Order: sequence, then structure tokens, then C-alpha cells
Amino acid sequence: MSEAPELDDATRRSLVAAVGGPVHVVGAGLLGTSVGLAARRAGLEVWLSDTSPEHVRTATGLGAGVPVPDEGAAALTVVAVPPDHVAEVVRAALERGGVVTDVASVKSRPLADLERRAPGEVARYVGSHPMAGSERSGPLAATAALFDGRPWAVTPHAASEPGAVAAVEALARLCGAETVRLTPLEHDRAVARTSHLPHLLAALTAGQLADAAPEHLSLSGQGVRDVTRIAAGDPALWRQILRANQPAVSEVLREVEASLHRLVGVIESGDDTALGEILGRGVAGTRVIPGKHGGPALPTEAVYVAVPDHPGELARLFADVGEIGVNIEDLRIDHDPGRPVGLVELLVAEDAASGLREALGGRSWVTHR
Amino acid sequence: MSEAPELDDATRRSLVAAVGGPVHVVGAGLLGTSVGLAARRAGLEVWLSDTSPEHVRTATGLGAGVPVPDEGAAALTVVAVPPDHVAEVVRAALERGGVVTDVASVKSRPLADLERRAPGEVARYVGSHPMAGSERSGPLAATAALFDGRPWAVTPHAASEPGAVAAVEALARLCGAETVRLTPLEHDRAVARTSHLPHLLAALTAGQLADAAPEHLSLSGQGVRDVTRIAAGDPALWRQILRANQPAVSEVLREVEASLHRLVGVIESGDDTALGEILGRGVAGTRVIPGKHGGPALPTEAVYVAVPDHPGELARLFADVGEIGVNIEDLRIDHDPGRPVGLVELLVAEDAASGLREALGGRSWVTHR
Repeated sequence: MSEAPELDDATRRSLVAAVGGPVHVVGAGLLGTSVGLAARRAGLEVWLSDTSPEHVRTATGLGAGVPVPDEGAAALTVVAVPPDHVAEVVRAALERGGVVTDVASVKSRPLADLERRAPGEVARYVGSHPMAGSERSGPLAATAALFDGRPWAVTPHAASEPGAVAAVEALARLCGAETVRLTPLEHDRAVARTSHLPHLLAALTAGQLADAAPEHLSLSGQGVRDVTRIAAGDPALWRQILRANQPAVSEVLREVEASLHRLVGVIESGDDTALGEILGRGVAGTRVIPGKHGGPALPTEAVYVAVPDHPGELARLFADVGEIGVNIEDLRIDHDPGRPVGLVELLVAEDAASGLREALGGRSWVTHR
Repeated sequence: MSEAPELDDATRRSLVAAVGGPVHVVGAGLLGTSVGLAARRAGLEVWLSDTSPEHVRTATGLGAGVPVPDEGAAALTVVAVPPDHVAEVVRAALERGGVVTDVASVKSRPLADLERRAPGEVARYVGSHPMAGSERSGPLAATAALFDGRPWAVTPHAASEPGAVAAVEALARLCGAETVRLTPLEHDRAVARTSHLPHLLAALTAGQLADAAPEHLSLSGQGVRDVTRIAAGDPALWRQILRANQPAVSEVLREVEASLHRLVGVIESGDDTALGEILGRGVAGTRVIPGKHGGPALPTEAVYVAVPDHPGELARLFADVGEIGVNIEDLRIDHDPGRPVGLVELLVAEDAASGLREALGGRSWVTHR
């Protein structure tokens, strides 16, 4: 079992000490099982439970921990259950003792429930939210690497014990994540803007296509596919998320409603200057989104390469890129099985693009911007 | 020079005959130069002109045609200039004679202008719109393969001569595209929905991030990146497009404004059933978008593969996928230079996914769903 990346042994040992003992993961779905695998990789003892005995069997089979023993108390319980059940399962865990966290995508509402119903125990609760993996589900999809380099929000409240905060942050770091500390309210406003609003506007955009004529839809390009992709997410899960974050979602939706109302007026009056400002603000918004894994956004440039549809051609391209020594930040492939040539878009650092184009050209690849 | 894909020689010859002589491309940017390259590949004679002599030099240097001669008449003129100049350049081309088309992304307004100002000549005009390449610009980005397998809308009006329609459709097919015939109004409503609305909602979503705190933005995931990506497009170009298509854009924006207003009410009243319907309609919308290149949408499934960050590992992965014999429909790479392992998402036909996972596992790759 390999160690969590980038932690030297002394750091790892002090983080394990901050966790303070066995970790009990409640809910062996994708997130819970991945926490188990990552925590085991870091050398922690992990106990697993789930309402589905089959999930526990699968997760233990994958090496994510052992079934929770009948006796003994966990030092840290990680609640990884669907949004609607978080508050009740956290409450039960607080009664068993130790520090408790959860990995749900909304933080204020479950906390308010706990403050009301378990005021004496809420100091041992610290919410958290790893930014990974929510689209897929089930323990079979789990991986120890799910959190590597990902942001993991940790959201202490006013009454949280410092030791509890330290334990939760230690777990996140042992799982390979980078912690981001926010208040529960800040967190919920942040995800309303960076996750829940995009989901809803993607759903409205996609909804506009639902009854369109097929020959109209045949004009769809990559843009509308990108904008609407997340709208394919499970409505049952999203209903729970949006309900849990209702105040923050409502606030940002009302802002967008006002912007859209203004945009309609700008379009209809032909106010070119105002339209330019709205579009310019959109451009500015795309530039402030940090690069993958929370790092600063790296200016990238696309290099397009025509790749013949023969077995091995993609492999030959990546072998050549590897030898040229340019790092690929992202890539897309645009390939129709019936066509002899696909187009591969390699996103590389802006200052590496023209060199890569030239070097690939020298190896007989057809590239363009 | 290779021939356009999938056209047998007899078909190609009859299409060249339908074009009927030299093709004059006005505007040697990305689209115009790509039309020149693709038309040359199909065996047509191509003349090029542009307000920028440098663009003409670059495009002719790439093999996209020769500078337009002082004498002689083109059989077909292709106007590939910015949206604001289309009507005026088409009018000038109609005066020179022959069939005239354009490749701009809006069709009704330029036609209305021509019907008013050149009523005697408008029968030789047939608008068209290849669904490719609008994001990049300049002749250096051009490629003969730009239109291969892409939809190319051809939009005859009531007075269009059949021979003119045949010439424009022949050019599109010789360029490797699949033609889609629509009225100008249908076309404009279709792109308002599949292109202009997604752009505007992406811009509003991105605009909501422009002033957000960096620690809030650090929670951004792949979803918001996908939704906002196209909002980075050039505001000057988009202003022209949106102005040209104002009636259709305004109509669809008002529909979305009403949907958004309703959504705000649904979120605030906690009407779970109605919220489920709105989200479900979004899911339905993502399913009707045709697959790449206008084919029917193929149900795909993601196979995630952990790829160590060593030179050659991507090449080894694609070599293995090639040997396994599964066709990759699309892929993404999620890779942080500071981390030892990247995650590659391979999108393959739904019924091939589990077999690919198993076969890759047998070759020691770590995969998950």
C-alpha cells in the first residue's frame, strides 16, 4: 500500500496522531469507501458500516477497512450518507462519542439542526466537504486517489473544539487533499455559486432543447454539449442538495434573475455597450476560476492535431509528446468512427504551445491552432 | 492532396459539376481558408481575396487557392467575413455574377437586407452555415479537415434558384460536411437555442464568479469549468452575432426568463415535485443532443484510469486500448503536474465499458467507474 502523496513520514505520523485512533466511516458509497481506502493508505485503522451489508462487503473486499466492531469507540466518525440523512446520522455518531464530521455538499442546515437537537455535543462536530467524486456512486467506483490534490473544505462553527478541527483537517490531508477552511455559511454561498447555480442554469439550457426539432438539434456543437453536460446528473440527489442549500441558492438565483432580466432589455434595445460589458464580465469570470486541483489558473493554449483513425496512432502521438517533453494539462478528442481522421485538442501551457506545434510538425503530425 | 472522405469519384465529379467552375472565397480567415483548402482537396479551382493582403499570402502559401484574378467570373462566391459585413459583401459579389453564399452564423437579417437592396439578384444567393471552427481565427488555424463529418446548414429562401441551392450543397459536401437544409428563420431559431442561449447563460454563470472571493472559487470543480468555458469567447464577435440574431435570441431568452422566474419560486417554496420536473427536463435535454458530427447520440459510459505521471504512460495506455480494440468516443485528462498520478476519463460505448475496464485491469491498469 503506497503512502499518501507528498507527505513526509514525520508529517504523516503527526497527522495520524491528530486523528487519534480508529476512523469509523458511515456509508460505504463512492465517497465513504474512497475515504476508507485513502485513510488505510495513510496507515489509519478504518471501520465501515452501511445500511447495505453488500456495500460493506464490497468496500471491505476492496481494502477500505473492516466492518465496525461491536465494541470500542472511534476517535473520528466520517458520515458519508445522502444529504437528507446527514443530520440524523451525525447526531447518532455524536452520541457514540469522539469527533464527528460529514462529507455532504451543504453545511449550514445540518449544523443548525445539530445546534438545536444536540447542543451539548455539537462542539465535537466539524463539517467538511471534499470536492471530488459526487457524480458517480457506489463502492465499486471508489479509489484511494479520489482526493489527491483536491480541495477539501473544512467548516468549523463558533463552538467547534480546536482538537476536533485538527482531527478533521488531519484526515483530509492524510487522504491526499488540500484543506480550505471556511465558515459553514461561506461554504454554502461558495458552492451555491460554483456548483448549484451552474447546475441549475445547465438544466434550464438543456430544458430548452428537450422539445426542439431534430433538424434544429443537429446544429448542436461542442459549446452546448459542455454547457449542458452536468444537467444529466441524478435529479433525486440534486433535489436533496438544492433543498438543503435553499437560502444560498435562492440568493444567487435572484441575482441571476436580475442579470437575465437586464440582459433581455439590453438585447432588445440593441445596447451594444451594455452587451459588451455583460459578455466581458463573463470572460472575466472564466479567468478567475482556479486551475485544476485548486492551483492558480495557468494560461493554456490549444494545439490541435489531426490523428488518423488507425490503431496505435493515439499511442504514437502521446509517445511523441512525451519525448518532446511538454506537459499536457488537458485534452479532448473529437472523433467520429466513420471518419478517417480525428482531431485531438491538447491543452498545454501558453508558452509551450508554439514549440509543441513545431516539434510535432517535425515528426510529420498535422497540427493547427 | 487527398480526396474528401467518403465521396466516390463519380459522386465527387457530379458535385464538382454542380458547383460549375471556380470558387471565389472572400475573407481568408479560419473559415474562408479552410473552405479553400477543403475545396482544393476536392479538386475545385479556388480564388482568394481579403482586405488583408497578408491573409491572402498566408492562405495561398498554405495551398488554399490563388489570389483572385483581375478578369473572369467565379461560378460560386463564398463570403467568409465578420457578421457585420456579410450583407454588404454578398451584395457586391452578386453584382459580379454567379451563385453567392456566406458562412455566417445568422441567416435571416442579411437575407432581409438583400431582398430590400438587391431584389433582382437575390435568387442567386443561398445562405449557409458550417458548424465548425468559429472559436478560433486567422488563416494559420485553417485545415482542409475542418468540416469533415460536420453539419453544414444550407438555408434557401423562397426565391432561391434550384441550381444555386445545388451549387452550395455541392460545395458543402465536397468540403466533407453533411448538409442540413433549413429555412433561414428555422436556422436562426435553432442556433439561438443550441448556441446563442448557451453562450449567454454561460456568460451569466461566469459573471457571477467575477467578484467572488478566491477561497470560494477554490471550491470550483469540473462542472462549473464546463458550463462557463464558452463564455471566454471574443465579446466583439459575439456582440455582432447576437445583434444579427436579435429576434430569435430575444424570443428564447424570454422563455428562459420565465423558466428561471418559475424556478426561483419552486426553490423558495420547497416544491420538490416541481423541482424534480425541472431537473428531469434538463436530463431529457441532454439526451436529445445528437452525438458528435450530427449522428444519433450514442449512449456512452466513462471508464476512469489512473495514469502514473511518467513519460510514456499515456502512450502505453492508448497502445493497450488500441490492442483491446475499443473505440474511444471522447476523453478527458485530469492531471496536476505536482501529483504522481493523473486520472484519464475514457468515454466509450455503454456496452463496451465493463469489458474495457476488465481488459485494462488485466494489463495492470487501475480503473474505476
